[in-house]
Amino acid sequence: MTLRPPRASLVCVGSELLSGQVNTHQAWLSVRLRRAGFDVAGESSVPDCVGVIAAAIRRSLEHSDAVVVCGGLGPTFDDLTREAAAAALGRKIRFVPRLWKVILKRFARYHVAVPEENKRQAEVIDGAEVLANDAGSAPGQRLEFRWKDGRPRSLILLPGPYAEMSPIFTRALPRLSARHARGGSASLTLRLAGVPESVADEKLEPVRALFPDASFTILASGGEVSFHATIRARTPAAARARIKALRRAALGAVGSWCYGEGDTTLEAAMGERLKRRNLTLGVAESCTGGLLGGRLTSVPGSSAWFTGGIIAYANSVKTSRLGVSAALIKKHGAVSEECALAMAAGARRALGAKIALSVTGVAGPDGGTKAKPVGLVHLAVSGPGKTARAKRLDIHGPRESVRSRAASAALVLLKETFDALD
Amino acid sequence: MTLRPPRASLVCVGSELLSGQVNTHQAWLSVRLRRAGFDVAGESSVPDCVGVIAAAIRRSLEHSDAVVVCGGLGPTFDDLTREAAAAALGRKIRFVPRLWKVILKRFARYHVAVPEENKRQAEVIDGAEVLANDAGSAPGQRLEFRWKDGRPRSLILLPGPYAEMSPIFTRALPRLSARHARGGSASLTLRLAGVPESVADEKLEPVRALFPDASFTILASGGEVSFHATIRARTPAAARARIKALRRAALGAVGSWCYGEGDTTLEAAMGERLKRRNLTLGVAESCTGGLLGGRLTSVPGSSAWFTGGIIAYANSVKTSRLGVSAALIKKHGAVSEECALAMAAGARRALGAKIALSVTGVAGPDGGTKAKPVGLVHLAVSGPGKTARAKRLDIHGPRESVRSRAASAALVLLKETFDALD
Repeated sequence: MTLRPPRASLVCVGSELLSGQVNTHQAWLSVRLRRAGFDVAGESSVPDCVGVIAAAIRRSLEHSDAVVVCGGLGPTFDDLTREAAAAALGRKIRFVPRLWKVILKRFARYHVAVPEENKRQAEVIDGAEVLANDAGSAPGQRLEFRWKDGRPRSLILLPGPYAEMSPIFTRALPRLSARHARGGSASLTLRLAGVPESVADEKLEPVRALFPDASFTILASGGEVSFHATIRARTPAAARARIKALRRAALGAVGSWCYGEGDTTLEAAMGERLKRRNLTLGVAESCTGGLLGGRLTSVPGSSAWFTGGIIAYANSVKTSRLGVSAALIKKHGAVSEECALAMAAGARRALGAKIALSVTGVAGPDGGTKAKPVGLVHLAVSGPGKTARAKRLDIHGPRESVRSRAASAALVLLKETFDALD
Repeated sequence: MTLRPPRASLVCVGSELLSGQVNTHQAWLSVRLRRAGFDVAGESSVPDCVGVIAAAIRRSLEHSDAVVVCGGLGPTFDDLTREAAAAALGRKIRFVPRLWKVILKRFARYHVAVPEENKRQAEVIDGAEVLANDAGSAPGQRLEFRWKDGRPRSLILLPGPYAEMSPIFTRALPRLSARHARGGSASLTLRLAGVPESVADEKLEPVRALFPDASFTILASGGEVSFHATIRARTPAAARARIKALRRAALGAVGSWCYGEGDTTLEAAMGERLKRRNLTLGVAESCTGGLLGGRLTSVPGSSAWFTGGIIAYANSVKTSRLGVSAALIKKHGAVSEECALAMAAGARRALGAKIALSVTGVAGPDGGTKAKPVGLVHLAVSGPGKTARAKRLDIHGPRESVRSRAASAALVLLKETFDALD
């Protein structure tokens, strides 16, 4: 009953990828292609050189149904993906005045003269469809054609910056998947928090055994875990029925660790819970310095439930803005359960919120002591009502891991507070 | 005078690289190869499949002096790099009893039985030199030979785990470099802010023309631009002299847009300027919700110059915590120059800082009006002394672009404030 899945390959363009910049697009695109039912057959990072890019595209088309090229669509001399893709397909490039008008309009808003070289961003490969870019001036391009073997191929060109690439790809994916799908496929993503990856993996093992026709990935990132399953069957209806059964089994295995499904985030799920209970949230941040507020306000519409925050980096701000007593800090230290609890209570008052979260810790690389080493973090929640809970973390890793994991853990503490109310 | 630098290519082996795991080895190895004078000509990520790995190795050897393969040397069924490399070179693999003894000894230390499949880790390609692995059981391998074109090639196989790969490669690099080196190389990175990529590119065009012996990249990311140049010459001293001349010319072209060099960030550079002037900084954030504070506190040691912030998301927090009058908000709106200036002044007082930055805007996707559309952002700075400046931005893009660009622009406003003081 197994069907060969459609194959996709990635070509990442940019000399910076060969001089030390970490390629995060590869991971981002791979996950999404897999979830859409593709087998990701390979990735190449190539320098800004027409011949090399063209060869990589041609080679990838040889053995893949879909080829996604990322980067090299900018306006400057070293943006050569358009020329390379045209050469790979033996097609011409033409200047599209309508696109140029869109670019001119974009620049007019910034009140800057448009450099002549930007005209290159209005060039389109013959037969390509333009994929609109709402976040930058370089549009994407989609080409659909048949290869020498008579089978359909898709070639998608995406701009390099993540903020531009990701929405264009997200919009292009359903059509890509529909064009190359064989039989039906259905998938499922469960988002878990408050559980280590290995424990989640163990709990889900019997589910994996029950569904030999599914492919699974389990991925830990920033203190959260996502569990993904794709099932392929002869028809879409059959695939959907199987995934429904798998979902039931998986939810039974992971219980309340699951805070949401699909592309949701922990902060968005917590926003929904706050709204449902008509509650508001404020934050007091020391070592995270605004990261927690930044994550919460990344959720569209968060003004309905997030009132604000106090970034109390200096102890004087903890005292003056959050009412943490200087004596408490002197006795227990700024990184202590006592201080975290006082910060949360103070933030709740100062920000007029029904619930407040607080974070205080030693992010490093300096400032650690034997008693309070780098990675020690205290969290607290105050509210709703009389609730007051604290939590201690010992995080291993560099400064940015300590900070981002501390922010995630504060959201998990909020989730556990809600779980206890249910 | 131009010398073709020796070329290196990377082959990263492992299906996990095509299912969402971020490939950090690529960046790590690229930086080190470039510093050792290699031009990194390409990277391929390939799945655990003998034929695909062998094809990638053969293709890389075709156009590179040195090929570094990473991963696939473990003991399990899906570790296939040895077989693939042997196939690529048309050589045989032999079992080396001496190596097997080393592995047995290693396991004895851990008091575990040695699985039979580990014998594969004692297999070496004919003619290969073993590269000892102090941190794991899979040794690396080095092959030196001549290719069909009569020129010398090196093929290095490294185990996948970072802790094993990195020391083996570090020890192997000097010999690799000595075998393939031609002349010397030097490089330069300038970090720019407050200028669009295409304008910076135009200004730097004459510099590029003056240095035909250099290779350049220019990269825009999150409202900033970085300019990178590498020069290769007959000797290291000659390369250094040329890059020094190039640096002078490039700095002349970009003027005060350049805030730093090498790996620095805008927030770290601003921290340095604050420290040098013995000033402190606070922030008041509305639409960025903590992102600006988050970036500033990402800098190790930022507690020396960052006091804290007020995330004034709700208007009630702008009024109660920043002293922005309700009448002002009613008259001009929360997204206005007047409100931004009042927020900055209020934050400076509330946080006991010598300078404060403020951000207020419409991040979207909802909340925009004809008069105040999504993407409209007002920034202000208060201090040092009597300084008070405001800036208006019209950012095109999705919510997260508006927010991250607004945070970047606030740092640029701080930079411009310092520039005006100089």
